[in-house]
Amino acid sequence: MELKPILKKQGKKILLIVLDGLGDLPSPETGKTPLEAALTPNLDKLVKSSATGLHIPVDYGITPGSGPGHLGIFGYSPVKYQIGRGILEALGVGLEVKDTDLVVRGNFATVEYQEDTPIIKDRRAGRLPTEENRKLIEKLSASIKEIDGVKVILKSGMEHRFAAIFRFSKTLSPEAEKINDTDPQIAGVPPLEPKGETKEAQEAAQVVKKFLQKAAEVLKSEKRANYILLRGFSVKPKLTPFSEKYGLKAGCVAVYPMYKGLARLVGMEILEVKGNSIEDELLILKNAWEDFDFFFFHIKKTDSYGEDGAFGEKVKIIEAFDALLPEFISFPECVICITGDHSTPCIMKSHSWHPVPTLIYSPYVLGGLSERFTEKECLKGELGIFPSIKLMPLLLAHSERLKKFGA
Amino acid sequence: MELKPILKKQGKKILLIVLDGLGDLPSPETGKTPLEAALTPNLDKLVKSSATGLHIPVDYGITPGSGPGHLGIFGYSPVKYQIGRGILEALGVGLEVKDTDLVVRGNFATVEYQEDTPIIKDRRAGRLPTEENRKLIEKLSASIKEIDGVKVILKSGMEHRFAAIFRFSKTLSPEAEKINDTDPQIAGVPPLEPKGETKEAQEAAQVVKKFLQKAAEVLKSEKRANYILLRGFSVKPKLTPFSEKYGLKAGCVAVYPMYKGLARLVGMEILEVKGNSIEDELLILKNAWEDFDFFFFHIKKTDSYGEDGAFGEKVKIIEAFDALLPEFISFPECVICITGDHSTPCIMKSHSWHPVPTLIYSPYVLGGLSERFTEKECLKGELGIFPSIKLMPLLLAHSERLKKFGA
Repeated sequence: MELKPILKKQGKKILLIVLDGLGDLPSPETGKTPLEAALTPNLDKLVKSSATGLHIPVDYGITPGSGPGHLGIFGYSPVKYQIGRGILEALGVGLEVKDTDLVVRGNFATVEYQEDTPIIKDRRAGRLPTEENRKLIEKLSASIKEIDGVKVILKSGMEHRFAAIFRFSKTLSPEAEKINDTDPQIAGVPPLEPKGETKEAQEAAQVVKKFLQKAAEVLKSEKRANYILLRGFSVKPKLTPFSEKYGLKAGCVAVYPMYKGLARLVGMEILEVKGNSIEDELLILKNAWEDFDFFFFHIKKTDSYGEDGAFGEKVKIIEAFDALLPEFISFPECVICITGDHSTPCIMKSHSWHPVPTLIYSPYVLGGLSERFTEKECLKGELGIFPSIKLMPLLLAHSERLKKFGA
Repeated sequence: MELKPILKKQGKKILLIVLDGLGDLPSPETGKTPLEAALTPNLDKLVKSSATGLHIPVDYGITPGSGPGHLGIFGYSPVKYQIGRGILEALGVGLEVKDTDLVVRGNFATVEYQEDTPIIKDRRAGRLPTEENRKLIEKLSASIKEIDGVKVILKSGMEHRFAAIFRFSKTLSPEAEKINDTDPQIAGVPPLEPKGETKEAQEAAQVVKKFLQKAAEVLKSEKRANYILLRGFSVKPKLTPFSEKYGLKAGCVAVYPMYKGLARLVGMEILEVKGNSIEDELLILKNAWEDFDFFFFHIKKTDSYGEDGAFGEKVKIIEAFDALLPEFISFPECVICITGDHSTPCIMKSHSWHPVPTLIYSPYVLGGLSERFTEKECLKGELGIFPSIKLMPLLLAHSERLKKFGA
């Protein structure tokens, strides 16, 4: 339900700690999940005074990407608000996206010309080294600064990938993104021409077309990366910012660009972290503590090690977090939630659909239902298995930020 | 889903016992909730042959008022059907509300006239004693019986509060309630003029305006309560009655006006209770047993003691109820549900969002899953954590009042 009519102006602070890809499955060797295998004396103690349960990030059986995973725990329906591939690529390489931007993901590709027609030979230009990608993006950026008054912003990703922003002088509507991919998904055929489905998209497609022609000229003499394919045209989704939706001044403590970008989409202020350890992040949290009502604190490596199938390393990250837990708990008058954005089981080496362990530390809990903070123990908890978008209403309730509904 | 197409004409009786504000949290001293601390040999026995679980009254994190709390367990979406403050005030003081009524909550206030303009000095007239309120309402009622053919009905609440009904000669639509509060919520300014947003509301606002002028004349010589402020204009919500929605002839056994009023809104017949103990209520239930298919049996004091933070008293009420339980169970061929409309934790001294323990006593249960009827033991039960509006379909199923859905 709509929370705006029952929001209070004041309340306790909320600290949402997201261990990315936290949930897991038993190791075939030991039968234990990383959370079960880890030695976590501090979590073991905390969990006894906390409400526990597991959240379902998107829906039963649905494996979320980072976008939907985070939107859910931020309280935005990940099905209603779908973030385009272009936007996620741009956020991932650290570009800021504005309301005036048409954003798309690019691949360097190899084409051969038959008469004047380019025919795709390799859609990824032999997965060219990131370093070569950087040089080409520099060259393109120097040659193509704008098209018909539309600013062009390019930034390299890994290997053959990059992000492109077409920055218009006016705010774009969701209609503007209705442009087909120019990547036909197979080799041996010409790239597709960008065409718009709507009037706004047709105008934008004209700009894109001219950009592709200019880029092809600039890249003509390249041996492998002599063409560009684009996919996932998207505009910035219209998400009611945290301040308006929840009355919260929200800060983000994260190391990776993607998560800072997602936080920025929902109106959080990004607190820049020097370094990339949990300790570095904690230092920033401490310094900014007085300035915000809500903190999103993101720990990436649980997911990275899950993706690598590195069970032992995932255990170590959990133990490192546990060792720092007393510092997190020492903040006064604060509701703390520890969870993940999705599961990343080591045996799957990928994100998965499995519900994610969740703990809410607050005085207003039954508590004592889970012996440890693990997948199986959280099943015994008072929160049950719940949709991730219900997490924020629960945190607002625990932080005494919601009025009674109805007399 | 819509139950009407699958309703049977016959079935067992249903007895829904609502211990208001039943759910609670552990006491900091003992770590036990009132349900855990209470000695309840009869509930302990009953729970083993019952289905158990917890219901969420409105939604995750949402703390319900009495209106939404009861609508949910009666099977009406508390978000879709919001009951206006005026209606609840009228129900609370024991007024019957009809389809032809515009209902509003009133405050006696103190104004000072600057030339002819009233300026609010005290929005609550110094919280005048209830006895003085009663005398003023008598005086107003004697002087203002009707305005332009619209009957005026006034009844005192506590201190400065009262309920006012403007009874028209025609049924009012929901448009009629779109009138602004005349209470500006601050002192030092004049009261607001009532204005209607719609044609129907504009006509009604004219009546209200004339009423306020007459009331000001009647109260002119009063020292503190010399003006009236109105807020929460509301018409009776259109709720499909129990008889039509469920095919149930429903009776209400309750002591407090608010709950009788809520029951009347959904078409229950009110059985007048002499006295205010659970025994007094039980006597009425026994006498009326043959005449109804469904009983709503309301016990108030669990909530009152929760609101007072009176842990020991809440325990005693639960024990008193437990002592009478054998009499409730002795009714033949009957499905019994014991639950609350919301939680009222003693440590919070207020309603809360926490799920509410629920028990269904019926032959068609797994049973044996909860050792006692407590918050934590109900978490182990076969009903899980479920939305309150699903309770009525479950009770209809257990009472064999629903046909198979589909062939």
